[in-house]
Amino acid sequence: MTVLFPSVAAFDAALSDLPGPDRAAQDAAAARQGQLTKPAGSLGRLEDIAIFVAGWQGLARPRLEQGRAIIFAGNHGVTAQGVSAFPASVTAQMVANFQAGGAAINALTGAAGLDLRVVPIDLDRPTEDFSVMPAMSVEHCLAALNIGAAQVEPGLDLIVLGEMGIGNSTAAAALCARSFGESAAAWAGPGTGVHGEGLAHKIAVIDRALALHRDAPLSPFETLRHVGGREIAAIAGAVLRARQLGVPVVLDGFICCAALAPLAAHYPAITDHCIAGHVSAEPGHAHLLARLKLDPLLSLGMRLGEGSGAAVATSVIRAALAAHDEMATFAEASVSTSK
Amino acid sequence: MTVLFPSVAAFDAALSDLPGPDRAAQDAAAARQGQLTKPAGSLGRLEDIAIFVAGWQGLARPRLEQGRAIIFAGNHGVTAQGVSAFPASVTAQMVANFQAGGAAINALTGAAGLDLRVVPIDLDRPTEDFSVMPAMSVEHCLAALNIGAAQVEPGLDLIVLGEMGIGNSTAAAALCARSFGESAAAWAGPGTGVHGEGLAHKIAVIDRALALHRDAPLSPFETLRHVGGREIAAIAGAVLRARQLGVPVVLDGFICCAALAPLAAHYPAITDHCIAGHVSAEPGHAHLLARLKLDPLLSLGMRLGEGSGAAVATSVIRAALAAHDEMATFAEASVSTSK
Repeated sequence: MTVLFPSVAAFDAALSDLPGPDRAAQDAAAARQGQLTKPAGSLGRLEDIAIFVAGWQGLARPRLEQGRAIIFAGNHGVTAQGVSAFPASVTAQMVANFQAGGAAINALTGAAGLDLRVVPIDLDRPTEDFSVMPAMSVEHCLAALNIGAAQVEPGLDLIVLGEMGIGNSTAAAALCARSFGESAAAWAGPGTGVHGEGLAHKIAVIDRALALHRDAPLSPFETLRHVGGREIAAIAGAVLRARQLGVPVVLDGFICCAALAPLAAHYPAITDHCIAGHVSAEPGHAHLLARLKLDPLLSLGMRLGEGSGAAVATSVIRAALAAHDEMATFAEASVSTSK
Repeated sequence: MTVLFPSVAAFDAALSDLPGPDRAAQDAAAARQGQLTKPAGSLGRLEDIAIFVAGWQGLARPRLEQGRAIIFAGNHGVTAQGVSAFPASVTAQMVANFQAGGAAINALTGAAGLDLRVVPIDLDRPTEDFSVMPAMSVEHCLAALNIGAAQVEPGLDLIVLGEMGIGNSTAAAALCARSFGESAAAWAGPGTGVHGEGLAHKIAVIDRALALHRDAPLSPFETLRHVGGREIAAIAGAVLRARQLGVPVVLDGFICCAALAPLAAHYPAITDHCIAGHVSAEPGHAHLLARLKLDPLLSLGMRLGEGSGAAVATSVIRAALAAHDEMATFAEASVSTSK
């Protein structure tokens, strides 16, 4: 495997050198939208999406032929604190289900015309319990980042990112709290189904972890390393690599987006090539999307993770690109533009 | 063509005898959702959609193989009042564009895996100007209703409805105002692009029409006949026929939904087999959806009509049915259900 970020310094350097979109392709796409047989602006967000994808792909007529959903999985030592409604063994069971084709993400990527790649990362080696010590060593966190980055290959038209990891909504809330400076209660929610006293306990565990790591550096990498997880670091690496390659990214729910919180706190432009596929039912997600300055495409009350909401959103993106590419112009169709 | 509603009395009789969903199929679908490999409820609205379609199709595992978008087109005498931003000739030009494959709805039905049927109705014979007389005779309105009903054939899994007709946002606002008892200003909006003084004029034309027809009967048929249009009556006929055949309907924007306003004012259950594909940017649409007790699936700022928003929404419905049908159960996948 090519190591794209061989050091923390290389990761930081990449974050401080984020490429922008291709303005010429964007402008050409916007001009085309103005000529298609519809009142100007009448396709609403579909028009914005086509122009957005044009800019990042560098193509006036962008495409979605090579789309890939990448689902990272990892295990979390913090499950020892009893923060989850499901046992940690479910992570590996669900990865097996992904590989056998029986999970939601299999059906949803099939319906959306996406390839699916499942990337379990050291499931038999959970992160450390971050309420008592850093979740990962520098080496482990860097390795996970690079595993994520390596999944994003040149030639992809778009990637959908998702995750699986029992305990990772606890890590996600800790990442948000540490990145954006609020307490755990502002970010933690039921996850797969922790309510009442269970949720109060989850919040207490996160607050204890935040206090424990209070004096650690607040850099993107150190926050990922202290309170993140392997699948979460992999998502951060994949988003950064996609930016370097001009591949637009569709983000999924709270945990997927939380992977970007430590990066966005220092480099807010990191989400510029990202579309928030949906806003989930996990209460912290809407709050996080506002911080990331992302306006979700869908709002369907989903809260499954594993890339599910982002996969559904991809069909809307596909529709946007189809209209952009296939519609006739007023001139081609001999339709009057106005009185 | 089979005449499904040979008289106004037959239309009224059908409206007062609306079949309900298949409760056994609904219950079986709900039970299946509880066994699939995901936390209960975590697919949010996708779960509701699968259960909804199961009920109307009468299948515990509903399908979307034979889906059809039906776009009705008609011309409107009220355009003589200068209520539209485009000339009336654009209706026929856009129908030609649909037939040539160059419109948004061609691209969007292609992306959604739907067949497309375009049904222009007497484009060379616009309705009368309803600000001076009823839009249609009883015979013309009944004929349009039956043209709509005839497009819905047994064996279809789902239909998407849309419309094209320069001037028809004026008719739609009049239908809503007459059905739900508010003034034109509460319902009229820019349509394809009428603002400021143009919009004030449009509102004045509608208010004049409402006053003119004040003493006409308020029945569904008479409201459709007085201030509707051929494509609008066809949509009403198609929705009613779909109900009789157990075919779920995806509604598009303001005009499409306004076709149901006169029916829903008397028979609110008429929308029970309908999904609001989206809420459009036309201001009256959100107001109308609330009256129809429909919660839109998408909110993308679209305002094109021609079935475009409903076609995009169909991909979400397809995703819902794919997850419902293809996912493994906890038992099949040997995944633990909880601690």
